[in-house]
Amino acid sequence: MNTSLYIIKIGGNIIDDEAKLAAFLKDFANIEENKILVHGGGKLATTIGDKLGIESKYVDGRRVTDAATLDLVTMVYAGLINKKIVAQLQAYDCNALGISGADGNLIPATKRPIKEIDYGLVGDIQPGKMMSMSWNELLNLGLTPVASPITHDGKGQLLNTNADTIAQEIARTLSGLYEVTLIYSFEKSGVLSDVNDENTVIHVITPTIYEELKAPLAGVGGAKIFAGMIPKLDNAFAALNSGVKKVIIGKAENLKELISGTSGTSIINE
Amino acid sequence: MNTSLYIIKIGGNIIDDEAKLAAFLKDFANIEENKILVHGGGKLATTIGDKLGIESKYVDGRRVTDAATLDLVTMVYAGLINKKIVAQLQAYDCNALGISGADGNLIPATKRPIKEIDYGLVGDIQPGKMMSMSWNELLNLGLTPVASPITHDGKGQLLNTNADTIAQEIARTLSGLYEVTLIYSFEKSGVLSDVNDENTVIHVITPTIYEELKAPLAGVGGAKIFAGMIPKLDNAFAALNSGVKKVIIGKAENLKELISGTSGTSIINE
Repeated sequence: MNTSLYIIKIGGNIIDDEAKLAAFLKDFANIEENKILVHGGGKLATTIGDKLGIESKYVDGRRVTDAATLDLVTMVYAGLINKKIVAQLQAYDCNALGISGADGNLIPATKRPIKEIDYGLVGDIQPGKMMSMSWNELLNLGLTPVASPITHDGKGQLLNTNADTIAQEIARTLSGLYEVTLIYSFEKSGVLSDVNDENTVIHVITPTIYEELKAPLAGVGGAKIFAGMIPKLDNAFAALNSGVKKVIIGKAENLKELISGTSGTSIINE
Repeated sequence: MNTSLYIIKIGGNIIDDEAKLAAFLKDFANIEENKILVHGGGKLATTIGDKLGIESKYVDGRRVTDAATLDLVTMVYAGLINKKIVAQLQAYDCNALGISGADGNLIPATKRPIKEIDYGLVGDIQPGKMMSMSWNELLNLGLTPVASPITHDGKGQLLNTNADTIAQEIARTLSGLYEVTLIYSFEKSGVLSDVNDENTVIHVITPTIYEELKAPLAGVGGAKIFAGMIPKLDNAFAALNSGVKKVIIGKAENLKELISGTSGTSIINE
């Protein structure tokens, strides 16, 4: 039996709320097992970008990272947010080490090729390129890595990368060495059967249940789950199929309950 | 005989110059011995601060760090500058790990007490509080720490700290484990006997020579060295007296020559 490792991603909404973030970090610090935190950006980058006159650019509804935007997110994500989280975790006796993907070459990536859309300085993580040893060495020192969603191409270029993807890739990479639980914490209580009702959390999703949930309702058309959850769930099953033991989706404020299994949605193979 | 360790501080002027910085980082990456880089801030924080409407405040000519300024320097120093340096070092095959003092609790500090002047969120490093083991563990993994001048108080508060002081304290702390050479690289070729003439570098300063240099010139009044160098030299001798083997002051562009001893000023005990 391998040692347990929790990889926990916190979304932007909690980062924007100082009191909620502090409560979350206290719960996170109290996890006794090995742990890694992956954080997104929140609205702060947009607020600061507006003041700096850095325009948010979108092509077909997708954000594009130009050089000015990359500098902005590097400052805000890898600098301000990451270091504030680390300092607060230190206060809770958690020996956090904040990183970008360039640090220790922990998250190597490749600039996304230009196809229909040029996303700019966005990095994709190539399967198998991340080194489990590099992460493991830090964990073995008793350190808790706190990853910001900035990667690099190994040739000197920083890149902007989705935090969900980073959490998933770290989970896959370390699943050979640890019994990994991957937790996506966000503003909802879990995967809901009615997206407008927080009391409709689906507690367990297996591949069979997932097929049922995705199936169009007879005579109604739409499926039983919110379409926006489908990419998250596809990623969750991909993680499980790569060796991750369990994926949990739920509310950041309920971190303790997500870990004990009394809150959120657990995604497991049969 | 202990293993060699170079602790190199680069000043702001080189950080502002992309081509010079790249050349410096290439030379730094080529140092085969253990090494740690400590960087200052440069003018970028002021430029970005101006755009964000964060006023630079001074009391009696000394910069004061209020909460907005701390956020600014955390973003710019620990985020943008630190990560750009790390990504570039990775491109030169140097496995750099960028840190603030909060990361891994590497640089614990205390908010400077308010006396005549309230410097705000400025951190002083308490002698003996920095843990040589924490630094040594990273060096033993083959990592090259790159320290930004941000520290923390262990209670969740980040603090702004002078990069020269950080370099000196790391040098002192690690001098029990390594044969430490501390290099202050800046825009001048070394300690000059004529501050306006780059050809007047004093190659070696011992305590005896230092006393002579500081002595008023007979019949002239002023000393033989520029008054601005005296705090740097006092710090250099303090480092030597705490176990650091050698302190070198010189031009960042000449890093190779500073290490080989063919450029700059070497400060040594007799």
